[in-house]
Amino acid sequence: MREPILLTPGPLTTTMATRSAMLVDWGSWDSAFNQLTASICRDLTEVVDGLDTHVCVPMQGSGTFSVEAAIGTLVPRQGKVLVPDNGAYCKRVARILTYLGREAVVLPHHEDEPADPRRIDAALAADPAITHVAQVHCETGTGILNPLPEIAAVVAARGRRLIIDAMSSYGAIPIDSRLVPFDALVAASGKCLEGVPGMGFVIVRQSALEQATGNSHSLSLDLADQWQYMRKTGQWRYTPPTHVVAALRAAVDQFRAQGGQPARLARYQKNCTTLIAGMRSLGLRSFLPEALQAPIIVTFHAPADPHYEFGEFYRRVRDRGFILYPGKLTSVETFRVGCIGAIEAGILREAVAAIGDVLREMGVGTIAGSQAN
Amino acid sequence: MREPILLTPGPLTTTMATRSAMLVDWGSWDSAFNQLTASICRDLTEVVDGLDTHVCVPMQGSGTFSVEAAIGTLVPRQGKVLVPDNGAYCKRVARILTYLGREAVVLPHHEDEPADPRRIDAALAADPAITHVAQVHCETGTGILNPLPEIAAVVAARGRRLIIDAMSSYGAIPIDSRLVPFDALVAASGKCLEGVPGMGFVIVRQSALEQATGNSHSLSLDLADQWQYMRKTGQWRYTPPTHVVAALRAAVDQFRAQGGQPARLARYQKNCTTLIAGMRSLGLRSFLPEALQAPIIVTFHAPADPHYEFGEFYRRVRDRGFILYPGKLTSVETFRVGCIGAIEAGILREAVAAIGDVLREMGVGTIAGSQAN
Repeated sequence: MREPILLTPGPLTTTMATRSAMLVDWGSWDSAFNQLTASICRDLTEVVDGLDTHVCVPMQGSGTFSVEAAIGTLVPRQGKVLVPDNGAYCKRVARILTYLGREAVVLPHHEDEPADPRRIDAALAADPAITHVAQVHCETGTGILNPLPEIAAVVAARGRRLIIDAMSSYGAIPIDSRLVPFDALVAASGKCLEGVPGMGFVIVRQSALEQATGNSHSLSLDLADQWQYMRKTGQWRYTPPTHVVAALRAAVDQFRAQGGQPARLARYQKNCTTLIAGMRSLGLRSFLPEALQAPIIVTFHAPADPHYEFGEFYRRVRDRGFILYPGKLTSVETFRVGCIGAIEAGILREAVAAIGDVLREMGVGTIAGSQAN
Repeated sequence: MREPILLTPGPLTTTMATRSAMLVDWGSWDSAFNQLTASICRDLTEVVDGLDTHVCVPMQGSGTFSVEAAIGTLVPRQGKVLVPDNGAYCKRVARILTYLGREAVVLPHHEDEPADPRRIDAALAADPAITHVAQVHCETGTGILNPLPEIAAVVAARGRRLIIDAMSSYGAIPIDSRLVPFDALVAASGKCLEGVPGMGFVIVRQSALEQATGNSHSLSLDLADQWQYMRKTGQWRYTPPTHVVAALRAAVDQFRAQGGQPARLARYQKNCTTLIAGMRSLGLRSFLPEALQAPIIVTFHAPADPHYEFGEFYRRVRDRGFILYPGKLTSVETFRVGCIGAIEAGILREAVAAIGDVLREMGVGTIAGSQAN
């Protein structure tokens, strides 16, 4: 039987070429490994057209570790951060700021409402003490896409600095650092680059990083120290996840060979359209209107039927070879389906067919009949 | 040609069975993956006979991340930590304390001198404000083994709490939590367990962890929050390095099948003895007397010959299939050779032969002639 397909927003389904890159042990001090790291950092900076202004600093751990590293390193202890909040990952940024003792101003939005550049502008105008804006690009909690270019323009016009959590958008949604000014953009190996999880990275404006020495609350997460050491030696400060790095190199090779960000966006867009259309044919509605939906992960309303129970639904769909993701909304019962990973639209059609079969088995109503195949 | 053998203290040479476990993608929310994590945590706690008193909390990142997590979570903000210092990793603990704003008392030792339980006892007697002792077990900077049971007894008798950095000893050197009382013991996947790097873990006294909520300086590194979430859901709080976890499961399976800690110690001891004897036959002296040497990594004096240069030496040995490790002493020029990883004494004999050939090629004198084969 085929391994289950992960329809989850990372870890996700990777190619055998990516996984096979982990069959070799690398010395973390060896020049061959240093070259691997340097080549990845270069390529990742190029994806956002940042080679003239920005550097890429990799960081061990999950993406959240890199978000915390970026905030802790770049925001001075007396800094103040505006957090436009329309979901779980925005709330996580606010929670990091609380841990770090950095002042935060949370700007609440509804979960189906994109972060509003006008409200951000007004908040910055009202409070000159705000030094930074921390903006989630695609909020993985719902799948909503926030209007990053407009927000970046507002932040720059007000002379403030922007930190972007681009965890689930980087590599798929276009971001050009020359048009979207930012001090830091955070992402991770195991999302749209389709590597395996285990490291994040921050693409950071070199001039900002040079001024950031001494800010960090944490030795492990000190991005400035990590960068200075790497610049001096070519090595990671502390043991890197060598196999994860090698897998990322292989994944980035495939990303480039397939046509880079535009090609990835096109594939994910097709996956997303196929998924939403198929689910609609089953009577399942997506939480967001299509105009706000990033082609990354789609939140669906749970069927309003007493026979539906997520745990049972999940297990049965899993038994048919597809791993779904639970919802992350407190107000409405939902579940999520990822569009990203080394999968094509045909896989989404198969997943929709499996979901339809399972709902029928469970006796869940409002199913209009599968047209998925 | 064979892949180079890593004679380094992690990342190290792993088995193909361990690496092959990374050929599958796992859903981080899936119950099969939760079971993988739970089984590893159980087995790792059992290695130190801690199942009645301690829990194992895994942590993303390198081993240093877990050291910082243990200190930041278990030492209250007003705590004070004694750091017996005889090497680079002790100094790293002191540096973490500085970052975290926890008061530190460093007890300096020479690098070839084991941490002295009598001096630790005197330091604790002299300063009742010291709440914790942070002790490195095997100091990887030199390879020296510190007398952990005696130190633990002194710390317990003085009513203080012990945090052990057992990064390069755990799994090879015996540690019984019933005889060696500790609040936390930190190690990582890619050392004597022979997994791949990318995660650490802390084996922590449950009663201490229960009192540790609110101490941590960092969200990502909050061990108490990580544990509470995992206890409630079976899942890691943030994306786990799924492939690294799967490789660790495979590595621990092999560890158990081979006879656990006693068998691993016996193999490493044989590797170490073979290495030191072979190097002695080349005229190369180890930095430490044998009585202080842990069978983990051996520091050798660099040959006192103008033809010797480490970079060149390293590259030539690498070309023959063995990756060495640079020295970490400031006072004396040295290099290091690891005894750990999925290697047998025959590999060390081959490495010694290669080192002998390279030194002859380089015209480095004081070589008595290889008897390594």
